Amino acid sequence: MENAVGRAGEPIFKRLALIGVGLIGSSISHAARRAGLVGDIVGASPTPGTRKRAEELGLVAKMYAEPADAVRGADLVILCSPVGTYADIAKTIGPHLEKGAIVSDVGSVKSAAVRDIAPHMPQGVHFIAGHPVAGTEQSGPDAGFAELFDGRWCILTPGEDVDKSALAKLQEFWQRLGSEVEIMSPEHHDMVLAITSHVPHLIAYNIVNTAAHLERVTDKEVIKFSAGGFRDFTRIAASDPVMWRDVFLNNKEAVLEMLGRFSEDLTALQRAIRFGDGATLEKLFSEARAIRRGVIHANQDTPQPDFGRRATSDAKAPQR
Amino acid sequence: MENAVGRAGEPIFKRLALIGVGLIGSSISHAARRAGLVGDIVGASPTPGTRKRAEELGLVAKMYAEPADAVRGADLVILCSPVGTYADIAKTIGPHLEKGAIVSDVGSVKSAAVRDIAPHMPQGVHFIAGHPVAGTEQSGPDAGFAELFDGRWCILTPGEDVDKSALAKLQEFWQRLGSEVEIMSPEHHDMVLAITSHVPHLIAYNIVNTAAHLERVTDKEVIKFSAGGFRDFTRIAASDPVMWRDVFLNNKEAVLEMLGRFSEDLTALQRAIRFGDGATLEKLFSEARAIRRGVIHANQDTPQPDFGRRATSDAKAPQR
Repeated sequence: MENAVGRAGEPIFKRLALIGVGLIGSSISHAARRAGLVGDIVGASPTPGTRKRAEELGLVAKMYAEPADAVRGADLVILCSPVGTYADIAKTIGPHLEKGAIVSDVGSVKSAAVRDIAPHMPQGVHFIAGHPVAGTEQSGPDAGFAELFDGRWCILTPGEDVDKSALAKLQEFWQRLGSEVEIMSPEHHDMVLAITSHVPHLIAYNIVNTAAHLERVTDKEVIKFSAGGFRDFTRIAASDPVMWRDVFLNNKEAVLEMLGRFSEDLTALQRAIRFGDGATLEKLFSEARAIRRGVIHANQDTPQPDFGRRATSDAKAPQR
Repeated sequence: MENAVGRAGEPIFKRLALIGVGLIGSSISHAARRAGLVGDIVGASPTPGTRKRAEELGLVAKMYAEPADAVRGADLVILCSPVGTYADIAKTIGPHLEKGAIVSDVGSVKSAAVRDIAPHMPQGVHFIAGHPVAGTEQSGPDAGFAELFDGRWCILTPGEDVDKSALAKLQEFWQRLGSEVEIMSPEHHDMVLAITSHVPHLIAYNIVNTAAHLERVTDKEVIKFSAGGFRDFTRIAASDPVMWRDVFLNNKEAVLEMLGRFSEDLTALQRAIRFGDGATLEKLFSEARAIRRGVIHANQDTPQPDFGRRATSDAKAPQR
């Protein structure tokens, strides 16, 4: 890691307001405090239990029920709630935002984020949508940790009329949280993430549900023999259902386009199996390995054979 | 682990012959030596480099080019090569097997294993097909480790006329390698594994290839932003292409049946996305979580948020 990971420095915002303190919100809190990036942090959640827990964990100085109360005096506001909540939140916080404040988000879809938030931003407030491409299958304020963004990419999708110094400041914020930053259009973001994240999650959810509704194989058998590959899909399919519902409702076109390609390719593979075309199968399977090498080379996954992880909770890497 | 894991005991076979020393063959060697299960181990591989490496690693006392040479004097022979090689190997070793020897295999399909091996087994030799449901995405003699089978299931699919004491001996062998043992018919095995292993691998290979051939998203982008879910599919799709080709060629009917169900369910999800049916999406996504809890409860995966694993090679579990 050649960037600012782990290096505490001068705060660049006096107050950060996190609207939502689930996996991503709580991880931002941990990483921002690790880097000494902000004066203080407040948060908002509609759920009493979440407010209590976020304060207990010290993620924030104070939690509010109303986003409008949390944003007062904040010079950085980040929406960390499901994408389906954005329009209402943007509308309610708009009149209470500080002049000069930066408003951003962490949602997995960006065109819809711009559509739902931008119209409610008052003059003098800088709205720049963002998406840290990082996560785990866990949810809630307890799920966060400071290292989540280390070495991962955060995509920012500013409008053409963006204030350059606000953009630079948000970019520095993410770099000091541990991320590398990439700038692209909301539309391109949604296309890239449809294939690298949204469709993979959809097919993981799908196969888990297919397996659960078979007549000839019981759920118990599916679970018992899941180490043959299935368990990795159950892991992905354990992600937050409401967050993912909103992703699919708000990135419909790109997801349907990529899903069309996926199904077309799967039909070709199915045909190769039906007609015993081993050469086609071997060729396709071999090509997939090259992409895997790329992912490891780009440091976006470890080369360890994690797929063979141990069942015990004090799991260690296998001794070789 | 309440079984015999890690406890060295009396050898129950005087000589084990491993026909193939890839991930599974080399892991059997490690685990059998850990448990003191066998007098000595020999192996066979058609590849000079593999023979050299297996001897260097001490996996076997001696490697042979010809399976027929390896099985002489062995009272346990395990085929650990791709399923497509079984018929030829069975034919060539048949006349050289010791009377009373047990012959087994580790292939991911069992009806085809019985079809290809059983006819070549001489009178007085006990053939019992098997499948340890464990693995990693890595291949070759360097990939094995002693803990691979710990707490995993090994499925045995004996014929109805099986010799009970031979079955009990093979069962003890697998238990002392660390596994739990389940007995079922070859046909049922192939149906269970089609959904828990074969179709998951097929769709992982498929989405990696779909992603590699898009016009609007570059390979570089796919790799860079793979932490959103895609990287887990590349991990599964890094498994051995020849082994998997043979699995699909030899479990055609069950795979096509399960693939049909998968596609039907995916079409329903696609339709829910197209028509903005959030309730259906959320319901399906929520149901998938229950299966995940079952997998963890059955000790077939760890509850740690591995999905958020760190990029560095000295990866640790996230600090919480």
